[in-house]
Amino acid sequence: MSKQALQYLSENREHLLDRLHTFLSIPSVSTDSVHKKDIKAAADYLESYLNEIGFDRSEQQDTGGHPLVYAEYNQAGPDAPTVLFYGHYDVQPVDPIEQWKSDPFKPENRNGRLYARGSSDDKGQVFMHLAVFEAYMKTEGKLPINVKVCIEGEEEIGSENLYKVLHDKKEQFDADFAVISDSGMVAENQPTILYGLKGFTGIEINVTGPDHDLHSGMYGGAVRNPIMALNHILASMKNEDEVVTVQGFYDSVEPLSENERELIKNVQGENYEESTGVRQTVSEKGYSAKEHTMARPTFEINGMYGGYQGEGTKTIIPSTATAKITCRLVPGQEPQHIQELLEDHVYQAAPSGVTVDVKKEKLSAKAYKVEPNHSLIKKAAESYTKAFGKETVYVRMGGSIPVVEWIEDIYNMPIILLGFGTPDDRLHSPNESFPLDSFDKGMETLVHYWENVK
Amino acid sequence: MSKQALQYLSENREHLLDRLHTFLSIPSVSTDSVHKKDIKAAADYLESYLNEIGFDRSEQQDTGGHPLVYAEYNQAGPDAPTVLFYGHYDVQPVDPIEQWKSDPFKPENRNGRLYARGSSDDKGQVFMHLAVFEAYMKTEGKLPINVKVCIEGEEEIGSENLYKVLHDKKEQFDADFAVISDSGMVAENQPTILYGLKGFTGIEINVTGPDHDLHSGMYGGAVRNPIMALNHILASMKNEDEVVTVQGFYDSVEPLSENERELIKNVQGENYEESTGVRQTVSEKGYSAKEHTMARPTFEINGMYGGYQGEGTKTIIPSTATAKITCRLVPGQEPQHIQELLEDHVYQAAPSGVTVDVKKEKLSAKAYKVEPNHSLIKKAAESYTKAFGKETVYVRMGGSIPVVEWIEDIYNMPIILLGFGTPDDRLHSPNESFPLDSFDKGMETLVHYWENVK
Repeated sequence: MSKQALQYLSENREHLLDRLHTFLSIPSVSTDSVHKKDIKAAADYLESYLNEIGFDRSEQQDTGGHPLVYAEYNQAGPDAPTVLFYGHYDVQPVDPIEQWKSDPFKPENRNGRLYARGSSDDKGQVFMHLAVFEAYMKTEGKLPINVKVCIEGEEEIGSENLYKVLHDKKEQFDADFAVISDSGMVAENQPTILYGLKGFTGIEINVTGPDHDLHSGMYGGAVRNPIMALNHILASMKNEDEVVTVQGFYDSVEPLSENERELIKNVQGENYEESTGVRQTVSEKGYSAKEHTMARPTFEINGMYGGYQGEGTKTIIPSTATAKITCRLVPGQEPQHIQELLEDHVYQAAPSGVTVDVKKEKLSAKAYKVEPNHSLIKKAAESYTKAFGKETVYVRMGGSIPVVEWIEDIYNMPIILLGFGTPDDRLHSPNESFPLDSFDKGMETLVHYWENVK
Repeated sequence: MSKQALQYLSENREHLLDRLHTFLSIPSVSTDSVHKKDIKAAADYLESYLNEIGFDRSEQQDTGGHPLVYAEYNQAGPDAPTVLFYGHYDVQPVDPIEQWKSDPFKPENRNGRLYARGSSDDKGQVFMHLAVFEAYMKTEGKLPINVKVCIEGEEEIGSENLYKVLHDKKEQFDADFAVISDSGMVAENQPTILYGLKGFTGIEINVTGPDHDLHSGMYGGAVRNPIMALNHILASMKNEDEVVTVQGFYDSVEPLSENERELIKNVQGENYEESTGVRQTVSEKGYSAKEHTMARPTFEINGMYGGYQGEGTKTIIPSTATAKITCRLVPGQEPQHIQELLEDHVYQAAPSGVTVDVKKEKLSAKAYKVEPNHSLIKKAAESYTKAFGKETVYVRMGGSIPVVEWIEDIYNMPIILLGFGTPDDRLHSPNESFPLDSFDKGMETLVHYWENVK
């Protein structure tokens, strides 16, 4: 019965916040070997908390790097679904420390927010799940669902060992669906279903002309300028209407349905002038900025360089020019295939007199999407709305979460992203915080969700 | 009578080379204040040499920077022309010193070449003129022409003060024509008339998009990428046929005459693969590489940068992108006008969603050209051919020599470039040298020339 669990959460709020403070006080910065002991302490904390809650099995597993906390609960009965819960206990470094208004590892409540490194990303959100499990066990003596817990300590350093672990222990992690709370809502108190993430792929283009920088007076007119050659190549890949002109790029893109356009329309748009300083948004012809960022593929030059970069002039024809490109992909686009299309285009567009070399970036990911009317999604939306008292909006995101693609890739299970962060949480920055209101309503959402799916 | 002067030069070769060694031994590096005394010593050397030769007036003049050596000879009579002779006594630094096979300031003869910093650029060539004047004075007691000598000490640091001096002392430097020996021949022992230089002008383009680098997942699709915007602008300025597509760019370019195309055809082309490593030359449609480098304007991107330049990927939309552009100009093209055409084009080509700013480079110069059939040029060619025993070729150069433009600008007098350097002289590099053969034949050329023009 959800009532009892909710009552427990409400009556034990101070106790639970105290426990959370203890967890947040451990400086589990994964990137710095100075914090190796703290990483271990955070894993210990989770292992013993899960034990105490009453999980059948709770242990630290070796990954080759920082330990992964694994726990299982199997007492919900054979008819209850099994959920794989993923989170991470490591946090970002705190530099620049002088910009923090309070100690990042002495959690402080100010103006309705809990300030601490990891309060939002992701220790705070991990803790909410554990607190909800505690509430069920303390009141009903059991959980409504079977659970496999996977909390890693390397997310902030690229989850270096996770893919291998997930791949090698298929039986251990297999479940009916996965739940991840490591994302956010589009605005504070605006329940948000994140039902899609983009994939990505990238290439680097190197153009070589002469074997050293040349005097532009002596050789201008005889030698192709590699920077200009690269300009011609790149300008042929996306036009001024923001349409990618690489042949086949859009071929397998699923068209945006009227239903999705409607869902996107319902999301309150970002104030781009405020957040980016641009006075005018520019997006693919035929699509709004919201539609393009959420649901259409993109092509970006992330960096470009060649020749002289100092003050004033240096009259040279440079020897080389380089551009780094990444594309954000949508469902249907195969990263390796898109890389090949980009590569083919570059070689075909290369003008004479220069040598063009394309390097394919190794890291790439497929896009992820759950149908917004999937029953697990609908139930999540209902749970959000019930807890927050507000209609849930549906969004897709331009970014990528590697673990989502990996779970999808290895297990092919639905992944439900139940995020409770807000745009003001300052993840990875000084003064990270999390609204206490989200803490309460988030836990309530989880209770409703387990009741809904059990 | 030229015979006597030539005989003197031949009989006194060792004596003259000794004098030249002394001059080259002075480390008159203009860029380094450590060498201030040496700069003075080189100016002293010239002042006293000119005095000794018998110039009516020889003195060091204050420029605000390093002194300028000025001397006059007015005894050739009212019918003889007055020549302004320009050269420079300062030299480039010698770094990296460890790459020199002999001390840069202890001149050494090896394999028919004189090795020393300044042996070609420009102390060696200045000395040849003084030696010829000495020869005339010692044998005939007079020079065949009236001479104004202007030897500066700041050429290697951009002739910082020369324009003002030339401008402020118009009467002092005024002459019938100018002679400069600070350039080279297209090949050793290939007498070469350099009858044209290109001018130049430049702009810098800055494109600003968002006010900070953005996450390409969150904002890709909403914000114009400044690097791509710059690519579209630049690709619209020159096409793949190497034709500049900026409106009006070629409007006032003098067409290349059949006569000039013939002159250019006679010049042995450079082996571009050897000197630049490119396997294929690329030049303006309708023109050969020789024609384009010598006699057609060019447009080069000297440098371009924006966004991430490190290893691997960084998935950002950069905040800014910059390109540095210079054009080499031909006679008829007004640098300021061309700058304006470039600027107008850039602003018109700028796509929406970014701010584009054009900075006009201050330093610019008009092209310079003497008609190849000008009598002073024809006489120079005859003198070269007589001394070197080989037909003289006519070339124009893609580079610029600022003093040429200044003399042209202020005095509007013909300027004859009598250069004797060779492509192997390694100007500005370790192991600078000058062929002793060029030393002898160059002085002979000068004697013939003075006889021809007197």
